[in-house]
Amino acid sequence: MPENPIRWENNTLIIIDQTKLPEELEYIPLNTVREVWDAIKQLKVRGAPAIGISAAWGVLAGLRENPPADTAAALRQAQETAEYLATSRPTAVNLFWALERMKKAAQAAADADSADTFFERLEEEARAIHEEEIASCRAIGEYGKELIKENTGVITHCNAGGLATGRYGTALAPMFLAHEEGRSFQVFVDETRPLLQGSRLTAWELRQAGIDATLICDNMAACVMGQGRIQLAITGADRIAANGDTANKIGTRGLAMLCAPHEIPFYIAAPSSTFDMSLKTGAGIPIEERDPDEIRRGFGKLTAPADITVYNPAFDVTPAEYITGIITEKGILRPPYTGSIAGLFNG
Amino acid sequence: MPENPIRWENNTLIIIDQTKLPEELEYIPLNTVREVWDAIKQLKVRGAPAIGISAAWGVLAGLRENPPADTAAALRQAQETAEYLATSRPTAVNLFWALERMKKAAQAAADADSADTFFERLEEEARAIHEEEIASCRAIGEYGKELIKENTGVITHCNAGGLATGRYGTALAPMFLAHEEGRSFQVFVDETRPLLQGSRLTAWELRQAGIDATLICDNMAACVMGQGRIQLAITGADRIAANGDTANKIGTRGLAMLCAPHEIPFYIAAPSSTFDMSLKTGAGIPIEERDPDEIRRGFGKLTAPADITVYNPAFDVTPAEYITGIITEKGILRPPYTGSIAGLFNG
Repeated sequence: MPENPIRWENNTLIIIDQTKLPEELEYIPLNTVREVWDAIKQLKVRGAPAIGISAAWGVLAGLRENPPADTAAALRQAQETAEYLATSRPTAVNLFWALERMKKAAQAAADADSADTFFERLEEEARAIHEEEIASCRAIGEYGKELIKENTGVITHCNAGGLATGRYGTALAPMFLAHEEGRSFQVFVDETRPLLQGSRLTAWELRQAGIDATLICDNMAACVMGQGRIQLAITGADRIAANGDTANKIGTRGLAMLCAPHEIPFYIAAPSSTFDMSLKTGAGIPIEERDPDEIRRGFGKLTAPADITVYNPAFDVTPAEYITGIITEKGILRPPYTGSIAGLFNG
Repeated sequence: MPENPIRWENNTLIIIDQTKLPEELEYIPLNTVREVWDAIKQLKVRGAPAIGISAAWGVLAGLRENPPADTAAALRQAQETAEYLATSRPTAVNLFWALERMKKAAQAAADADSADTFFERLEEEARAIHEEEIASCRAIGEYGKELIKENTGVITHCNAGGLATGRYGTALAPMFLAHEEGRSFQVFVDETRPLLQGSRLTAWELRQAGIDATLICDNMAACVMGQGRIQLAITGADRIAANGDTANKIGTRGLAMLCAPHEIPFYIAAPSSTFDMSLKTGAGIPIEERDPDEIRRGFGKLTAPADITVYNPAFDVTPAEYITGIITEKGILRPPYTGSIAGLFNG
C-alpha cells in the first residue's frame, strides 16, 4: 500500500495524482487553494477520509498562498478558504467534518499573538486530523481482519484503500492486516464504472501488497456470488446517517442487495468522521451527479451516441437493513444501528 | 431500427459490423466461411437470433466459396461447414439450432439432381429461418407491448434489438411497437460492460427510433430502481433451459435479482429457437469466458494493472424464480415454467 499518499512537506500539500494510476505513480504539489479545490473536484485525490485530510491541509495551503498580515486577517482567510473548499464535492461528509474542525481550531486560535502562531496552531489541527484518520484506519483493520477467515472470498467495490485515506484504507485495511498475518484469501475487485477506481486503484493496491486479487466488471458480482466464491463483502462509505443508511460509490447499493439472497454478509468500513448524526436517514444525503461524458466517452473514445441522455450519479444509498455490520475504529457496530451508532458518539 | 442488419444479396452474406457502432454504420460482406466464423467470434454480428441466422447463411457462403462438383460433395461440405461454424461461440443455442436445421435440410436435399439444386434447397431453408425469426420477433413485440403502459420506466440490459436479430429485436420489439402506437415511456439502458452493447447498440437503436432513452452504467440500476423510476425490466436470452433458467449477457442475473426487492417485474423475451429442451436446468449451460484484456484495456487504454488476474464470463444464468414471464412468439409464458415451456413445444 502507498505509505504516504497525502503529505505536508515544507509547507506544501503533496498528493498522488490518482487519475494517472495505474500507469503512473506521480506525486504532485498543490500550491494554491484553487489547485486543492480542483484536485478534489477532478478526483486527483478522492476517497472520503482522503478528501477530509486534503481539505484540512488545504486551509494551510491558503494561508501560505497569501500570507495574512495579522491574526484577524488569518482567521478571516482560514474561514473563507474552508467555506470555498467545502464547495468542491457534496456527498462525502468527511470533507465538511474536517473543515468544521479547522474552522473551530481557527476560532480557538483567534487569540494567537501573530499570524505565524495562528498558522502553527492550525497546522497542529490538520496534523491531528491526518494522524487520527490513519489511526482509525489501522483500528478498523484490526477489528475487520477477524472477518477474513482462511480461504475466504471477499468482494469490494470502488477504492477504500490507502489512496482513499491517509494509510491502510477502510474497506481494504482488514485485507492488508489479514495478509500481513499470513492468512490466505481471495479478493474480487469490482472495476467500478464509470471512473474505474476498482480496476485502476484497488487492483493496483492489492497487487502491490501481494494479495490475490481478481478483477471483474461490476455486473459480474451476482455471477461470482452464485458460484459460491464469495463469503464476505466490504466497502467504504462517504456518509452514514444516524440510522445506518449509507451513501457510498454508485453500485454499492446493488452489491449489498445482491448479497442478501446469496446469504453473504455485507459490511461497511468507516471511521467516525464518516457519520452524519444530523441526518436521521439516508434520504437526506445529497448525491453528486457528474458529467455525462464520463459514461459516453470515458475512455477517450466515443462509446455511445454523442447526444444520448445520461444519468450519472456518483453515489447511491444502501438501506441499513442490507448492512450486516459497520466496522469503525471503536469496533463493529451491529443492528439496530440507531442505538449502536448513537453509542459510538456517546459511549 | 435497422431494416436489414443481415442480408443475403447476390449470393453473399452482408452484415452490419456491430463493433464499429455507434461511430460508423458499416455493412460488410462475408465472402468466406472463415470470415463468417470470425465475424461471429469477434462479435461483428452478435445476439442469439442474429448468430443463428448468420450461421445458416454461412453454410451457403461455404458452398459459394468452394462450389462442389456434385450433390454428394455438396452434402459433405454443408455438413462440415455447419460443424465448423458451431465452434464459433458456445452459449447461444440459436447457433446450434439453426445449424441443425441446415444439416437436416442438407440431408433432405441429398436426392437433389445437381449441386445447384442442392444449393437452392438450402437457400430456401436459410431464408425460412431468417424470415421465421423476424416473424417471431414481431410477434414477441405484439405480445410484449401490452406490458409497456403509458409513462412506464423500462430497463434493459445488453442489446436485444434489431441488430441482435433479423429485425425488431426480442427485448426491444415491445418498445418499438409500443412507440409506434404513440405510447410514451422511458427506457433506461445499461451500458453493459465490458463490450458496451447497451451504450453502443441499444442506445443507438432507441435513439434512431426516437424513443426516450437514458444511458446508465450497469451498477446504477439499483439506484434508479430505488428512486421508483422503473416499473418493468425486459432482456433477451441466449439459452433457456426446460425449467426456465436463462443464460443471457453477463449482468442479467444481477439485474433480475435486484428487481425482486424493488418489486419490479422482470421479463425475458426470446423466440422458440432460444429454448434448449435438452437441459433440465441452467446448470448445464456452457458459459463462454473471454479475453481478460476486454476488461483491462477494453478501449485501447490500459485501465488496470497489466498483469492483474481477470474473470470475464460473457454470460450468466438467471434462476427461473426471478423471471416474471417469458415473452415468446406464441405468447407470454408464466411460472411454473416446466409446464408452460413444455406447452410451447407440444401445444
